[in-house]
Amino acid sequence: MDTIFYNGKIYTEDRAYPICSAVAVKNGVIVALGADEEILKTAGPETEKIDLAGRLMLPGFVDTHLHMLFYAQEASLIDLTDCRSYGDVKRLCAERVAWAKENDKWVQGTGFNQDDWDVKTIPTRKDLDQITEDVPLTIRRTCHHITVCNTKAMETMGLLEEKEDSTQINMGFYEDGSPNGILKEDSQNVVTDALPLPDKEEIKKLILFGCNQAAAQGITELHSDDFLLIPGEAGERVMEAYRELSEAGELPIRIYQQCMLWGKELLQDFIDKGHRTGESYGFYRVGPLKIVTDGSLGAHTAYMRKPYANDPQTKGKANYTDEQLYEMCKLAHDHGMQIATHCIGDGSLQQILDAYEKVQMENPRTDCRHGVVHCQIMDEEQQEQFRKQNLLAYVQPVFVRYDMNIVDDCVGSDLARTSYNWRRFEDMGVHQSGGSDCPVEKFDILPNIEYAVTRTNRELQKSWYPENAVTLEEAVKMFTYEGAYASFAENVRGSITVGKYADLVVVDKDIFEIPVGEIHTTAVDLTMVEGKIAYKRQ
Amino acid sequence: MDTIFYNGKIYTEDRAYPICSAVAVKNGVIVALGADEEILKTAGPETEKIDLAGRLMLPGFVDTHLHMLFYAQEASLIDLTDCRSYGDVKRLCAERVAWAKENDKWVQGTGFNQDDWDVKTIPTRKDLDQITEDVPLTIRRTCHHITVCNTKAMETMGLLEEKEDSTQINMGFYEDGSPNGILKEDSQNVVTDALPLPDKEEIKKLILFGCNQAAAQGITELHSDDFLLIPGEAGERVMEAYRELSEAGELPIRIYQQCMLWGKELLQDFIDKGHRTGESYGFYRVGPLKIVTDGSLGAHTAYMRKPYANDPQTKGKANYTDEQLYEMCKLAHDHGMQIATHCIGDGSLQQILDAYEKVQMENPRTDCRHGVVHCQIMDEEQQEQFRKQNLLAYVQPVFVRYDMNIVDDCVGSDLARTSYNWRRFEDMGVHQSGGSDCPVEKFDILPNIEYAVTRTNRELQKSWYPENAVTLEEAVKMFTYEGAYASFAENVRGSITVGKYADLVVVDKDIFEIPVGEIHTTAVDLTMVEGKIAYKRQ
Repeated sequence: MDTIFYNGKIYTEDRAYPICSAVAVKNGVIVALGADEEILKTAGPETEKIDLAGRLMLPGFVDTHLHMLFYAQEASLIDLTDCRSYGDVKRLCAERVAWAKENDKWVQGTGFNQDDWDVKTIPTRKDLDQITEDVPLTIRRTCHHITVCNTKAMETMGLLEEKEDSTQINMGFYEDGSPNGILKEDSQNVVTDALPLPDKEEIKKLILFGCNQAAAQGITELHSDDFLLIPGEAGERVMEAYRELSEAGELPIRIYQQCMLWGKELLQDFIDKGHRTGESYGFYRVGPLKIVTDGSLGAHTAYMRKPYANDPQTKGKANYTDEQLYEMCKLAHDHGMQIATHCIGDGSLQQILDAYEKVQMENPRTDCRHGVVHCQIMDEEQQEQFRKQNLLAYVQPVFVRYDMNIVDDCVGSDLARTSYNWRRFEDMGVHQSGGSDCPVEKFDILPNIEYAVTRTNRELQKSWYPENAVTLEEAVKMFTYEGAYASFAENVRGSITVGKYADLVVVDKDIFEIPVGEIHTTAVDLTMVEGKIAYKRQ
Repeated sequence: MDTIFYNGKIYTEDRAYPICSAVAVKNGVIVALGADEEILKTAGPETEKIDLAGRLMLPGFVDTHLHMLFYAQEASLIDLTDCRSYGDVKRLCAERVAWAKENDKWVQGTGFNQDDWDVKTIPTRKDLDQITEDVPLTIRRTCHHITVCNTKAMETMGLLEEKEDSTQINMGFYEDGSPNGILKEDSQNVVTDALPLPDKEEIKKLILFGCNQAAAQGITELHSDDFLLIPGEAGERVMEAYRELSEAGELPIRIYQQCMLWGKELLQDFIDKGHRTGESYGFYRVGPLKIVTDGSLGAHTAYMRKPYANDPQTKGKANYTDEQLYEMCKLAHDHGMQIATHCIGDGSLQQILDAYEKVQMENPRTDCRHGVVHCQIMDEEQQEQFRKQNLLAYVQPVFVRYDMNIVDDCVGSDLARTSYNWRRFEDMGVHQSGGSDCPVEKFDILPNIEYAVTRTNRELQKSWYPENAVTLEEAVKMFTYEGAYASFAENVRGSITVGKYADLVVVDKDIFEIPVGEIHTTAVDLTMVEGKIAYKRQ
């Protein structure tokens, strides 16, 4: 035997054997479950015996929608959160200049807040030039609404010659009429577009960083939507980086790639290259085509069937016409791809329900497991269509933390009540898995589980349609078994069952015993993926 | 759309959409479920619309253990049940002589009962010689304990020279000391062994006959154990016949082949030929290795841990030692075979539980779905081991019809109560599927479902541990979804779900509404396999 965990509370997520105290693992597979004595007697001299000391073990967590590489990229920026003066900012950024120059990179900081400083003034372009004039440098405010750039960055982006009275860019100017380096709101995208693209080795570093961070949260599989990191390349470089790491045995956790391909041409190219859902390289597998049909609620860009209650001029914006969406779906469906489509508004949900129905009617396929990511605004009739078509729901319970403040205003309470309605999906028997959409939210699973169960924002002391919550058992299933199901892996993962891979997590509190409002305080002690320890808390 | 069923009660066996009234089928796949109006509007001029007239539709039935070819062979014998004189027997048998002579076959009748005749005497060898002296001829009594042979048959079997005082064969003699042609009990096997083996074309005829009979019972998939039809050949001829029919599109229902291979050498040969579980030819697929570890309860050959209560001299007979059984299992397990092992007694059950555990510990495999066929005598501790190892149970509810008369006597009531305990398996969440073991019992599914639910022999007006019965919903699942699960097909069959194959059955009564004791009176009106009608009642 390779590893035996004993003296624990093992919650198997398997009806046939719900709870036991010990589990034996060999060659990455669970080979025995039972009582301590019985399992320990299978130990040999080579066996690593791990005393769980009464702690809870669960099947490894799965996050079924996030952007792991964006998260990792974001995390590689200089963290300015703790700065207490502009001097602190200068010092931290200066440390990165030599490296950036050598590697042809930008210096980028994030998280500053001048209100925390001794002198509470937002710096401008010329201030940043004191740090470096040779290397592009940007710092973003903690609110994400403002980014300040040095002269080199402004020059690189071609913004130095902008004039206050003619510019299309949301930016600031000095009194002399020259740009002061402050970019606001959407105009910050100019920075993203201008950044040098990461090469394969850099991507690998991001992958390893992100995967290790995820493993520390008990995550054994991520369904990650990463292709936009390298715009226009249909993700080839990203896929290659993952594949090489996986084949070298260096990927610490499993990745199921959600393949965001913007428009039919990119999809056709991807298919022509021979890529398909299910293409497999050990821990790295190609997942569904990811389609994005609309925007967000906060920006009123989520596409609704009726105008926004608090903005009657708009129904939001559909990224595709019905016909375009149908054509994307048809191409993917006819070539054996699974499809996962981002829908926030009920308008885009209706578009995709109709598109899925049409492609399946025209070319009936078995077990394609198409689904909808976010599934936020919807009425009961749409949920009915959803289940009849046997679609997957990918939901982000933690979204209610913020969204509870805006949904009723945006769509009215009648529609709000039937939206984010995970309870009804569970009652319907819909396959519903959980995710974080990280970096939109952190990928910490336990707070996410807490939101699924409580729908309560502790800071605001506010619950939002708590009758639409799921039970704790259902929430755990959403982040374990249903995650495996969404990647066609439920027969080999997603529960602690003899003959499944040993993807496991040990946590420091028994979430079934503590008050549900404290689940977020639970920490991960150990994460195992296919029998290998991917994380162990020191 | 190819076919629309409407105006029915469609019991989908799918939590996500349990009941609807209409279903649309295209290219063999279920593409839409819903209300009549909504589904009928998908019809085109090419659509066949079938009015269910309120009738119940269920997922196609699966029988997970039977011997379809034996059944068909049995059915090809001359049926002597209705004879009212020996003259009737002569006439019916005489009609077959010319054909048998031409085809180098035997003439075989079954089902005679001299008590129904005008002259109530069992005929002997010389009587049968009046029908034919050139062709071997046998007739079997309705009780199956006696077979009478003509002289040619006795000669062919080498039994003509047997002497009453020296024979090892259980047979009858004339007063002059010569054999009278009557074979009793086990000695009837000499006939089976002497019969000319059917060639491939004959096997195909048997297959088509058996499959069509099964389709008329609503069966869309059989897990059939057929290899012993051609002893010593490891089933190659049988497999070829199935394969050719399937590839020609002539197989009306699906066959999952249980591969009975008696001993390690036959198994090694089978593996060397490249056969594996999952090998697939359309409707014909290679299933598990079938192992038979013991005999039957009635004959006291089922292998027990303790002596028979009513026969303390014996514990029955294990066909394999622990070591032999382990070696068979290891060979199969290490070569990617699923394993299904016949166990009646708790002794052989313990042997296989230990063997399965050992091979999995030595070579951990994911999702191998090994299982136990019959699973009759067992205690609660064994059921516990069963579920911990995640094994499949293949049970035959209809067996209690007869077995209720003998089990308590054989093993005592303490053990009888924990045996055939389908209720506990369901409560444990064990994957448990239903079968008939036909020709041991008829493969009529509805009476089998009734036994699962009632455990009541109507003729005897006797119920047997009715607390161990399952619910009707569970019983239906055993004969539908769990059948698909046992052949790794639950994602594409086993429920009426969009994106699954259209394997469907329409019955003439609503079994959920009529008294459970009347379920056996329900008839099958229509059977569809992958969108094609395999049976329609005239």
